[in-house]
Amino acid sequence: VHRANIALLTDFGARDPYAAAMKGVIASRTDAAIHDLTHEIPPYDVVAAAWFLRQCEAWWPPATIFVCVVDPGVGTARRIVAVERNTHLFLAPDNGLLTFMDEGAARRFEITNAKHFLDSSSTTFHGRDRFAPVAAALARGVALDELGRPIDSTRKFDYTPPHRSGEVTVGQIVAVDRFGNAITDLEATSLPLPTLLGRVGDVAIDRVETTYGGAQPGPFFIVGSSGLLEISIANGSAAQKLGLTRGLSVEVWGA
Amino acid sequence: VHRANIALLTDFGARDPYAAAMKGVIASRTDAAIHDLTHEIPPYDVVAAAWFLRQCEAWWPPATIFVCVVDPGVGTARRIVAVERNTHLFLAPDNGLLTFMDEGAARRFEITNAKHFLDSSSTTFHGRDRFAPVAAALARGVALDELGRPIDSTRKFDYTPPHRSGEVTVGQIVAVDRFGNAITDLEATSLPLPTLLGRVGDVAIDRVETTYGGAQPGPFFIVGSSGLLEISIANGSAAQKLGLTRGLSVEVWGA
Amino acid sequence: VHRANIALLTDFGARDPYAAAMKGVIASRTDAAIHDLTHEIPPYDVVAAAWFLRQCEAWWPPATIFVCVVDPGVGTARRIVAVERNTHLFLAPDNGLLTFMDEGAARRFEITNAKHFLDSSSTTFHGRDRFAPVAAALARGVALDELGRPIDSTRKFDYTPPHRSGEVTVGQIVAVDRFGNAITDLEATSLPLPTLLGRVGDVAIDRVETTYGGAQPGPFFIVGSSGLLEISIANGSAAQKLGLTRGLSVEVWGA
Repeated sequence: VHRANIALLTDFGARDPYAAAMKGVIASRTDAAIHDLTHEIPPYDVVAAAWFLRQCEAWWPPATIFVCVVDPGVGTARRIVAVERNTHLFLAPDNGLLTFMDEGAARRFEITNAKHFLDSSSTTFHGRDRFAPVAAALARGVALDELGRPIDSTRKFDYTPPHRSGEVTVGQIVAVDRFGNAITDLEATSLPLPTLLGRVGDVAIDRVETTYGGAQPGPFFIVGSSGLLEISIANGSAAQKLGLTRGLSVEVWGA
Repeated sequence: VHRANIALLTDFGARDPYAAAMKGVIASRTDAAIHDLTHEIPPYDVVAAAWFLRQCEAWWPPATIFVCVVDPGVGTARRIVAVERNTHLFLAPDNGLLTFMDEGAARRFEITNAKHFLDSSSTTFHGRDRFAPVAAALARGVALDELGRPIDSTRKFDYTPPHRSGEVTVGQIVAVDRFGNAITDLEATSLPLPTLLGRVGDVAIDRVETTYGGAQPGPFFIVGSSGLLEISIANGSAAQKLGLTRGLSVEVWGA
Repeated sequence: VHRANIALLTDFGARDPYAAAMKGVIASRTDAAIHDLTHEIPPYDVVAAAWFLRQCEAWWPPATIFVCVVDPGVGTARRIVAVERNTHLFLAPDNGLLTFMDEGAARRFEITNAKHFLDSSSTTFHGRDRFAPVAAALARGVALDELGRPIDSTRKFDYTPPHRSGEVTVGQIVAVDRFGNAITDLEATSLPLPTLLGRVGDVAIDRVETTYGGAQPGPFFIVGSSGLLEISIANGSAAQKLGLTRGLSVEVWGA
């Protein structure tokens, strides 16, 4: 397998030298292209990282290596894992970050072979000392089973998928984007579109739009680009105007 | 034409998975280098995007493909257009973003050939589903006239260029940078430098400096790096200290 | 020497077109890979840039060209310098940014050969007009001594390294990261770990941890990923909770 692309997802931000050090280690060890997915996951927010990954990973080339470092437990007993799925490889701490990538995975490994780690005494920066050199090794063609041992499962974060309660389907807001759209975990394909009704907190929503622009005033549902139902509002931030935040329940039903 | 560079300009920010998805689509379809110009255009701010592009595009290699997605009307009837100018290719929604690139364009096209779009039902993310694969097609050598049909003009945003009123030239502030410099639309080459006088709101400006550092206290004019007149102040943010924002009128005249 | 990597460190931010213009100039003149270290150094903060560089440069490939533009004196008499150290090349204004890179440098040059500058009348953007084309020239194999003249030293910023006062070693906080860790200039190898005691302002610190996670409540010392002593707190921002900012004195002693 030729692995020509390495994609980085971290909570390191742009002001600190951490992403820069990781990229240096990778560039030192492979010619694979290094891509920034984001370094702006909120600090320690494993759940945000999991949803971010779920929304963009499918669009990446076959064999892409995703290096995902949101790692509040760095240096503790938490494992480093690799999950292979649809030819994609995901490296992450075993803390729930790969919750959605684990489903349907072809193989799972714990990364244990210190031969591919940097020889550093640091216990605080596995992104640089373990994730980066292991990603580079994979890009150079080192096999997964040389890097560690197969495992049966990886850790999931505590998450209740949407469920039915009579005629009502209940989901939740899983992300709010910079435009103020509130993204839910309700898969559009399972919903009675286009005549959907619903509620989030005290706010009733009684229509579904197909574009953000051109909509009448007031909140509406829209099928977002990942196939998930979103709550939006014309010419403004639905999150701000309606007080929507991650975790809020969203109820929908057919008209 | 070998098109080896793709440069991205969006309002997607770094926290959301949108730029990451776009880059994945492009990397899946071409080996051209992917460059981030910015993803931090303020949400929906087509005018800011137009000025950003005007200030940096000239410095890019011949044949660069600029993918510009600030697209409040995504999914509505607004067109997707391609403008060719000085060997550069600009892809954008037809909403004024290419106002300054249209002038002197060699060719203009509306992009209509769905064969090069992703097969997605999404109406909300043309950056990923249309702009990205079309950019990759262009990088692979697909000709513009295979992608759509020639058009005569593209949309401009509502903009009044500087004008003379007796001895006074009247322009406006078009951008404020992170250092607090207020950039105007007054071309330095058309002004009676270095003895320029001027006014913005209640603030009189009576000198022109050639460097930001080393200047005496108080506001001054300086010719910025794009040849546009700027209003600055030593050791601080002119925008903050003088209350300068985009759209404010600036009047200048010879001493 | 084949110089395949160019790494950028600036205070230009992501909203303005300055980093984008620099990258265009470089991409126009060399095929070397262009990497963003950061563009989020606080405006004009030469000291932050120097510490950023010190923490990440060692991890980059041999022969990397670092283009460092935090340049409040742009256009004034300040020199542009190049420092070679461990095969790495550092280009920067001579304002202290290379304080830590100068130590042990193999060669130092003042960059004076205008033949490699852009032919621009701008006095305000040497990042684009001088640093970028000079970096590209170096990547293409132009020798340092064709670009300028050897010099004996470069400017350091005003900095007092840690010193002993009786049994106490006195250092200072040199950076606060986005996780709220306060990074000091105390090299861990010179300290009586793991039984270190210390004080910053009114706050006493009486233990050393090896991981951020799993620590008991209260502040602690930890050896950070660059070998520098840090002050941290479990599940929160030490900087915020303890009021730690750059420049504060930190005293440590053996138990």
